[in-house]
Amino acid sequence: MALTSDIKGVVPIAPTPFHEDGRVDDASVDRMTDFFLESGCDGITILGQLGEAPKLDHAESIAIAKRVIKRANVPIIVGATAPGFAAMRTLVRDVMELGAAGVMIGPPNTLRTDDQIVTYYRQAAEAIGSDVPFVLQDYPLTFTVVMTPAVIRRIVSENGACVVLKHEDWPGLEKITTLRGFERDGSMRPISILCGNGGLFLDFEMERGADGANTGYAFPEMLVDVVRLSAAGKRDEAHNLFDAHLPYLRYEQQQGPLGLAVRKYVLMRRGVLASEAQRKPALSLSAQARGEVDYLLSRIARVDKRAEIAG
Amino acid sequence: MALTSDIKGVVPIAPTPFHEDGRVDDASVDRMTDFFLESGCDGITILGQLGEAPKLDHAESIAIAKRVIKRANVPIIVGATAPGFAAMRTLVRDVMELGAAGVMIGPPNTLRTDDQIVTYYRQAAEAIGSDVPFVLQDYPLTFTVVMTPAVIRRIVSENGACVVLKHEDWPGLEKITTLRGFERDGSMRPISILCGNGGLFLDFEMERGADGANTGYAFPEMLVDVVRLSAAGKRDEAHNLFDAHLPYLRYEQQQGPLGLAVRKYVLMRRGVLASEAQRKPALSLSAQARGEVDYLLSRIARVDKRAEIAG
Amino acid sequence: MALTSDIKGVVPIAPTPFHEDGRVDDASVDRMTDFFLESGCDGITILGQLGEAPKLDHAESIAIAKRVIKRANVPIIVGATAPGFAAMRTLVRDVMELGAAGVMIGPPNTLRTDDQIVTYYRQAAEAIGSDVPFVLQDYPLTFTVVMTPAVIRRIVSENGACVVLKHEDWPGLEKITTLRGFERDGSMRPISILCGNGGLFLDFEMERGADGANTGYAFPEMLVDVVRLSAAGKRDEAHNLFDAHLPYLRYEQQQGPLGLAVRKYVLMRRGVLASEAQRKPALSLSAQARGEVDYLLSRIARVDKRAEIAG
Amino acid sequence: MALTSDIKGVVPIAPTPFHEDGRVDDASVDRMTDFFLESGCDGITILGQLGEAPKLDHAESIAIAKRVIKRANVPIIVGATAPGFAAMRTLVRDVMELGAAGVMIGPPNTLRTDDQIVTYYRQAAEAIGSDVPFVLQDYPLTFTVVMTPAVIRRIVSENGACVVLKHEDWPGLEKITTLRGFERDGSMRPISILCGNGGLFLDFEMERGADGANTGYAFPEMLVDVVRLSAAGKRDEAHNLFDAHLPYLRYEQQQGPLGLAVRKYVLMRRGVLASEAQRKPALSLSAQARGEVDYLLSRIARVDKRAEIAG
Repeated sequence: MALTSDIKGVVPIAPTPFHEDGRVDDASVDRMTDFFLESGCDGITILGQLGEAPKLDHAESIAIAKRVIKRANVPIIVGATAPGFAAMRTLVRDVMELGAAGVMIGPPNTLRTDDQIVTYYRQAAEAIGSDVPFVLQDYPLTFTVVMTPAVIRRIVSENGACVVLKHEDWPGLEKITTLRGFERDGSMRPISILCGNGGLFLDFEMERGADGANTGYAFPEMLVDVVRLSAAGKRDEAHNLFDAHLPYLRYEQQQGPLGLAVRKYVLMRRGVLASEAQRKPALSLSAQARGEVDYLLSRIARVDKRAEIAG
Repeated sequence: MALTSDIKGVVPIAPTPFHEDGRVDDASVDRMTDFFLESGCDGITILGQLGEAPKLDHAESIAIAKRVIKRANVPIIVGATAPGFAAMRTLVRDVMELGAAGVMIGPPNTLRTDDQIVTYYRQAAEAIGSDVPFVLQDYPLTFTVVMTPAVIRRIVSENGACVVLKHEDWPGLEKITTLRGFERDGSMRPISILCGNGGLFLDFEMERGADGANTGYAFPEMLVDVVRLSAAGKRDEAHNLFDAHLPYLRYEQQQGPLGLAVRKYVLMRRGVLASEAQRKPALSLSAQARGEVDYLLSRIARVDKRAEIAG
Repeated sequence: MALTSDIKGVVPIAPTPFHEDGRVDDASVDRMTDFFLESGCDGITILGQLGEAPKLDHAESIAIAKRVIKRANVPIIVGATAPGFAAMRTLVRDVMELGAAGVMIGPPNTLRTDDQIVTYYRQAAEAIGSDVPFVLQDYPLTFTVVMTPAVIRRIVSENGACVVLKHEDWPGLEKITTLRGFERDGSMRPISILCGNGGLFLDFEMERGADGANTGYAFPEMLVDVVRLSAAGKRDEAHNLFDAHLPYLRYEQQQGPLGLAVRKYVLMRRGVLASEAQRKPALSLSAQARGEVDYLLSRIARVDKRAEIAG
Repeated sequence: MALTSDIKGVVPIAPTPFHEDGRVDDASVDRMTDFFLESGCDGITILGQLGEAPKLDHAESIAIAKRVIKRANVPIIVGATAPGFAAMRTLVRDVMELGAAGVMIGPPNTLRTDDQIVTYYRQAAEAIGSDVPFVLQDYPLTFTVVMTPAVIRRIVSENGACVVLKHEDWPGLEKITTLRGFERDGSMRPISILCGNGGLFLDFEMERGADGANTGYAFPEMLVDVVRLSAAGKRDEAHNLFDAHLPYLRYEQQQGPLGLAVRKYVLMRRGVLASEAQRKPALSLSAQARGEVDYLLSRIARVDKRAEIAG
């Protein structure tokens, strides 16, 4: 099940479930996988930054990938961002053998010039094999690497295996419009554009031509519905649902370990994860923050029953 | 009318109105000043980053300050962030003589260690005069300078004239709680905490103990109401109003010149500014972006009539 | 006396002399100007970063420019790097009226992509007037902006007034070779390449095709001799002289206020400046550092008598 | 042979030898190990940044560590800087079992505040085991993390296993003096200070109280002699030797892959490495650069015969 530029819909970024003592929680991995599938997701991205990948050793990473790939009948994308090509190559080879659909690669934060960025992706593709489909992650807020539309076009043109853009530039709406323009004028091969950035602009990103979402929001069902409504041209309905979630979505989209803590807490409250535990370096929510999240969920629940959480 | 730590409420960050040909638009400056006062604001900050201050020469800056200070009967705070203490000293001396209530100082983006930050504010206070009240601007996203609560406490303790924190760290809710804890345990003199960051977390920032808002949202009346409702303990009402604005507020809070372009466009649509013109380097909204903003305003207007804009 | 791409030789970056109490020291400004001329310099750059320009107010800057321009019979280049085009335009207009030969512009440290850099210089040229000759400062270590040779070529091609590159990339030798290659293959108009970076690679930069030095080394006579010897093909003699100075030159090239403190100390010891005072934020040399500098000068003096300093 | 704070002298940072086709070159690993021992080195650091560690997979890293540890009768320090604690823990456990003397840990470039830096090292020490001796690497130029002397003192105080500082701040002489002052006034436990930064200030670092060098200069014999002469109080002799090497040492100390290319080239010319090959991303020297290096070596050879290289 290879990743192609035809992928559309919602591909959640999965957190990694841990037991309170720090061991990987296999039962929660399974439950989370089923949860994503039942939510209507079209793929799953595992071992991304949100997935605490740098806190897992190689054997653990492979075990998780194996488990999720075996259980799910949708494309599994594996985070392969790494400080060097050796670790990247090893991980990619192992997960592709297990049946991963493709990998996601973010840039090292030392890249500055256009040429450095293009060269990096050329070398990464050589390192992992030019036949391995990959997602180009464009996230300046985290990586401090700024890719113009023209640079993305160069990367897509040079690398046939670059089939998806994980778009999370901010501001980023005009970028989608520009890239779709490149496709229309024939200067760039069509790719799938899936949006990250916590879904903060998904409502308008869809209207600008995005193909879906690729982010870790704790209610993937909402993302699925918004993508569907938007694709069906039901603008007001899409925004109504999105706006009902936005106050909490914004809260979840706080950068760094706090955002992850919020997501794991809610997924635990929803019965998906057995524990909200993070591996170190970790951050746990204050009682006040938990109360804020509970309050926000209760407000969503007035409109969307799926946010009702049994106290 | 000196700025003190008693300031509460809403202090908008004012944009600078220009004519289409780039000249400062005095009539719009006056109209905007009146608009802020009629909206119930408790002060006005001019010549901040949002105010395109680096695009104004000294004479223009002084003329604007003079005009606003003369017209308004609330404290006027003047942005004084500068690459060197000479320009800072000159500007501060001139605007304080004109009757400014105080100044706002953000850190140069070269500061790294705790001591460097504390030293910078000590030297800045010496440069401008230790009797000039100042707002400490804590905005890591823009300045790349990270101030821990303990560093803020050191700055407040060393500088009697540091009376307000413009809080725009992100995530930042626990920071407010920690600072208020310092005040309660007697380790820090009480200061006013006014929140920026486009107001994106104002609903909860108020609940954590903030004194108000210090940001450039195009509907300051909403900020005024949320601050009032929250201070009165009317939690649901505060969130209801805030949430109605959030989809647009989020859109406006896009970083850099785009966010400013949105604000100027809406203030023009509201009849406050005669033109949405920015000085170079500038960015103008695409037709698609204008449509998105109009759509968002029409949705606010279902709940808050003040967002109704005559087509 | 307009700056052109024909400029060759040594153009020192001048410090700004202060009295102990912080006032500008006019007598030392004059003595320093004469010293540079007597040393055989081909121009002087004033009000650069080394010149503590951000610590000077506008009137002081203009007064210094006026004084030096009037006294010297060589092209005077004025540092015009600024956080906004308004201040840049004002300064440039005023110093060009006084007879400056041109200005030097470094990039703001927020620029990331190739296009952002090119656009910045286009807008800067529009702001100051397209007839004002300017030096493009390429100093990634300080500005965090990385310009590829292709970006420099785009800036040179777009802006007829860009006549000099202040080259201080590190490593940077291949960059000079590439740029000279662009000139040879006709893809770039010839420009003057003057080298900064404290002179740390001047020996080889000359051999790669540089036109001279544009840096603040405290013995400009040495730079003059090395440039002359190198241009005359006297390789070993050039290196012999350069190498005799290198241990001290390296010491002086320590980044930030320390390097400036060393230079001012030595210029004071040489009788050029009356005081080594810096304006705040300042750094003064420890006794140990002074001893190290004295020792290094005594070692140069074994080969180059000009480094002999009366105790 | 555990690493302790008693270590003194020269601990070279070893490159990783590759065959032309990219495989690790075991014979050269052995020859290089012997070369360091014969040069009088007191330890060897392997798998550092200079050692292209991110380009090696885990098995390769372990194989190299095993080989060097077995062959050498001096402490072997292994670079353990990693993007996450999982990879760090695995590597450290494996190399310590093989007999490594300790590990070296640099900070991730996302750390900003004093507390973040201190917390990171506390967590790293917990991750690898509080009994594993480690070298604290302080290299702001590469890591963009600035550690004040007070922060270093906090790290040393909290972590009994922090026994060496790899000092490569720039400027950095006063830092050594301050840290030795902390030791004298009893506020910090004595540690070994070994200097990196290519050796660019080793002459004065020794005079300020450093214990030796921990850097990859291609003539470790020179470092050994300078450390010995300096420790013996033979100041002029130490500087004479150091200065003879400085023109080349400066050339070698160019940042990034160029500096590594120069070192590998010279070690190949010296017969230590069979090839100068780097793994990708790699940089190869231009013919002009090779000529410059050869010229510089020929000039050292006038004073120090060890730099004579058979053409």
